[in-house]
Order: sequence, then structure tokens, then C-alpha cells
Amino acid sequence: MTRHNTKLKILEHAGRLVRLKGFNHTGIQEILESAGVPKGSFYFYFRSKDDLGLALINYYAELIAQKANSLFDKAEGSPLEKLLKFFQGMRELFEQDEWRGGCPIGNLSQEMSLLNDTFRSNLQRVFSAMQLKIRDYIEQGQAQGDIDPRFDPNNMAQFILDSWEGALLRMKVEQSIQPLLIFEMMIFGHLLTL
Amino acid sequence: MTRHNTKLKILEHAGRLVRLKGFNHTGIQEILESAGVPKGSFYFYFRSKDDLGLALINYYAELIAQKANSLFDKAEGSPLEKLLKFFQGMRELFEQDEWRGGCPIGNLSQEMSLLNDTFRSNLQRVFSAMQLKIRDYIEQGQAQGDIDPRFDPNNMAQFILDSWEGALLRMKVEQSIQPLLIFEMMIFGHLLTL
Repeated sequence: MTRHNTKLKILEHAGRLVRLKGFNHTGIQEILESAGVPKGSFYFYFRSKDDLGLALINYYAELIAQKANSLFDKAEGSPLEKLLKFFQGMRELFEQDEWRGGCPIGNLSQEMSLLNDTFRSNLQRVFSAMQLKIRDYIEQGQAQGDIDPRFDPNNMAQFILDSWEGALLRMKVEQSIQPLLIFEMMIFGHLLTL
Repeated sequence: MTRHNTKLKILEHAGRLVRLKGFNHTGIQEILESAGVPKGSFYFYFRSKDDLGLALINYYAELIAQKANSLFDKAEGSPLEKLLKFFQGMRELFEQDEWRGGCPIGNLSQEMSLLNDTFRSNLQRVFSAMQLKIRDYIEQGQAQGDIDPRFDPNNMAQFILDSWEGALLRMKVEQSIQPLLIFEMMIFGHLLTL
């Protein structure tokens, strides 16, 4: 395994553990054992646990951006339909944890925002990038007459993103897909529908 | 100080630390120092840190219920206006942490849902109670013709509650009141307005 692959493998396993147990509750040894990487080699890849946490934020930011691009490129229909398909596609990501895992970005936000300003500014950046992507599709929908032009597209994008994060939090507490389905119904069946 | 008062004081200080640092990152000693309670007396009040965590969920459930009742009783106007005033009143609770602290119930949900099933079922109970309260006012609003009768009141109440939790998470990341204002505008200015 190349050095790059090992680093990715550590991030994958760290991500799963953070989704399931949170960042503070996940130990370095546990991550390495889960990834099958020899103990002691951690500091070859990361300077500290915080360094791993920051790499994890970037890893998920990249993963979300790739998944978003692939979903938007594949989706057919109006900007509004594409936006719905994006959230439906993202929803599938959480099936692997059987709706118990929660959002890694949400987890890190809840746990680390106040403890570490570098974490916080990186998390802000991830939220901003997602919000911008959603805003683009709202603006396109407004231009095509699908979405009410009176909405401020940036505020609407923020509300949708924040509500999505709230639905993911509730999903984790209920261990159920249901909060995500209610999110989709309310945003796409009521709020955005003309 | 009576035994009851000391216990309440420990819970108050534990709550502030959990809002600011999360549950896993908050130590028992730190809570006792903050509360000015002698070290070593912790186990007089709580069997374990988890026992304190469960007491904290009940403490906040009670606090939210009291605040909700007082806000709903005080508020004048239609059920819709009362519901808005409820969220505006709750919003003020977060000002004490300068919008940095986040929701204690959200924090505990993100951190503890998967680690501890007793925590999870207690958190579910708190969410259900809040949802029921919101549903009551939606049903009253529908009966009075203020809110679209086609909405399922339970789904709408869940969406509003989950979106509120998401807005509180974003508030914490941005250290800003703005996500809460956008929540109010979207729910009460667009979604629920006929």
C-alpha cells in the first residue's frame, strides 16, 4: 500500500468512527486498529489528533463536493428536480450506517466549533461551499420560473442546508430515515413549490 | 446551601460547560470547580458522569417546558403569532453564550445517541415533548384558519423542530444569531403564512 493509500484508509476509518462515536470519543489506537495500520505509524501521516481532525474535514468536504457534482451532472430535469435528487442521493450515504451515524461535519461542528478556531473556520468553509452550490440551483430555478423569485436565494440556501443538518441530527437520535423524508417533503413539496 | 440547591448548582454549571465544550470534553472536576462545590462530593449527588448526563437531559427538558409554558402563556395573538414568540423567546436563551454555545439537547444528541441507549431514549422523549407542544399550536392555527389545513400537523411540527436544531448548530459554527433569524423568516414568513 502506498503512503497516499494508507493515509486515505486511516481517514476512512476515522470518519466512520467519528460518525458513530464522535471525535472526542474516538482514540488514535482504535482508528489504526480498525484500519489495520501498524500502531506507531500514525505520526508518519499526522502531526496530532487535531491534525487528523482537520484532514477529516477536508476529506469530507472533497467527498461531498465530488458526490454533489456527480449527482447534479447525472440528474435530469429542472433545477428544482436536480436539487431534490441531490438530497435524495446524499440521503443514501447515511444508509451505510443504518441511519445511526449522523453527519461527520455536523458531529465535528457540535463537538469542536468552540474548542478549536481552526476547526471552526474550516467547518464554516465547508458549510459555505455547500450553501453556494444550493444557491446556484435556486437561482437557476428562479430564472426558469420554477421557484418563487421573491425568495432571497442565499437565505433560502442557508435555511435548506441548516434544516438538512437538523434532520440528520434527528435521524441519529431516532435511528430512522423518517426525518430526512419529512425534510424532503416540506422543502420540495411545500416551501419551494410554486 | 441545601442538598437540592447544590445539585441544581452542579447541573447549571455542567450545562454551561456542555453547551460550550461538549459532554465528553467536560470533566467532573472542572464542573465542581466551576460550581464552587468541594471535590469529592460529586458522588454524593450522582452515581457517575453518565448519571449526571441523564440528570442534565431531565434538567433541560424541565427548563424548556417551563420556558415554553411561560412564553405561550404570556404571548398574545393568534396561535401562529404565539408560536413565533415562543421561538423568539427561546432564541434569547442562547444570547447568554453569545451565540457560541449551541443547544445542550443537540450537543448531547450528537455526542451520546449512539454511545448510550438510555441517553438516546431520554433525548427522544425530550424531542417528542417539544414536537407535541409545537403540533398543538399548529392544530389550533389550522382550526382558526391561520395555517394551511393541508399540512400534516405532526410532520410540520417535526420539520420545524428539526430545522430549529439545525439552525442552532449553524449558529454555533458561525457564532452568530443570523441562522436563527433566517429560520424564523422562512418558517413564519414563508412556510406557515397563508
